[in-house]
Amino acid sequence: MKLLLIHSDYLEFKATEKTKIAEDTDRLEGKMEECLTVFTAVEKGDEKNQEIIVKNALDEIIKVAKNLKVNNIVVYPYAHLSSDLASPKVAKEILIEMEKRLKEVGYNVLRAPFGWYKSFKISCKGHPLSELSRKITCDMKERDEKEKEKSES
Amino acid sequence: MKLLLIHSDYLEFKATEKTKIAEDTDRLEGKMEECLTVFTAVEKGDEKNQEIIVKNALDEIIKVAKNLKVNNIVVYPYAHLSSDLASPKVAKEILIEMEKRLKEVGYNVLRAPFGWYKSFKISCKGHPLSELSRKITCDMKERDEKEKEKSES
Ligand SMILES: [Mg+2]
Repeated sequence: MKLLLIHSDYLEFKATEKTKIAEDTDRLEGKMEECLTVFTAVEKGDEKNQEIIVKNALDEIIKVAKNLKVNNIVVYPYAHLSSDLASPKVAKEILIEMEKRLKEVGYNVLRAPFGWYKSFKISCKGHPLSELSRKITCDMKERDEKEKEKSES
Repeated sequence: MKLLLIHSDYLEFKATEKTKIAEDTDRLEGKMEECLTVFTAVEKGDEKNQEIIVKNALDEIIKVAKNLKVNNIVVYPYAHLSSDLASPKVAKEILIEMEKRLKEVGYNVLRAPFGWYKSFKISCKGHPLSELSRKITCDMKERDEKEKEKSES
């Protein structure tokens, strides 16, 4: 999974047209202010262990949100971040699960619909931590441990 | 090179803070309307043949601009599109060359400064061709020929 996290003054979107893989939804427009916008591309490699990918993605997103002291999160599907995408079915499931779990831990969440062409407006705050990108894998814990070992040796 | 091309109602930016690799420039803010915003990550593999990479990138950008009937182009450095970046020196040279060549063929070009933290606002139009991503390589012509052969066979 690829994430592009933008600390935003606002993000607003409006679905304009369906693609062949459009999610069935009534939420065709939305706006959030003072938010962390999480542009998200679910990748092929995420299909084999959705539960762990969702957990690792949420760990990262929540770490950034806490750091920025942000309580509003936009989950925005963004296929252009990867050239190795998961199936639309899995991508949709994972995005919906991310929304659900972020709400469960108390965030206000706006999720943009999957598979629609959308107009959007965003304002990125521009401070040094306002734009971050992350590659989320199933074995991040393992990798983190290895990196920790390396830097300690 | 990775490109993310956004057909935009407007793009505006304001440099907020230097990074260690900041370009020396007086153009610290800018705005363009009715433009094609070209978020650009210059990659390691682009270093070996800058001339061809620039040519192939411009071919793609101009193709899209003509298709959208747009005469305003924003060249916006965007490292987050790649995890395999070129050296800052080469990236800067290539971005400056892209700006110069686009101006030479008649486009109005706004180039955002390299290596600065920047706030920005963008409005993406949202029609089906308003968001496109491209991987630019040195051997695109060759690849295009191969794909043509494949599709003809
Ligand atoms: Mg307009």
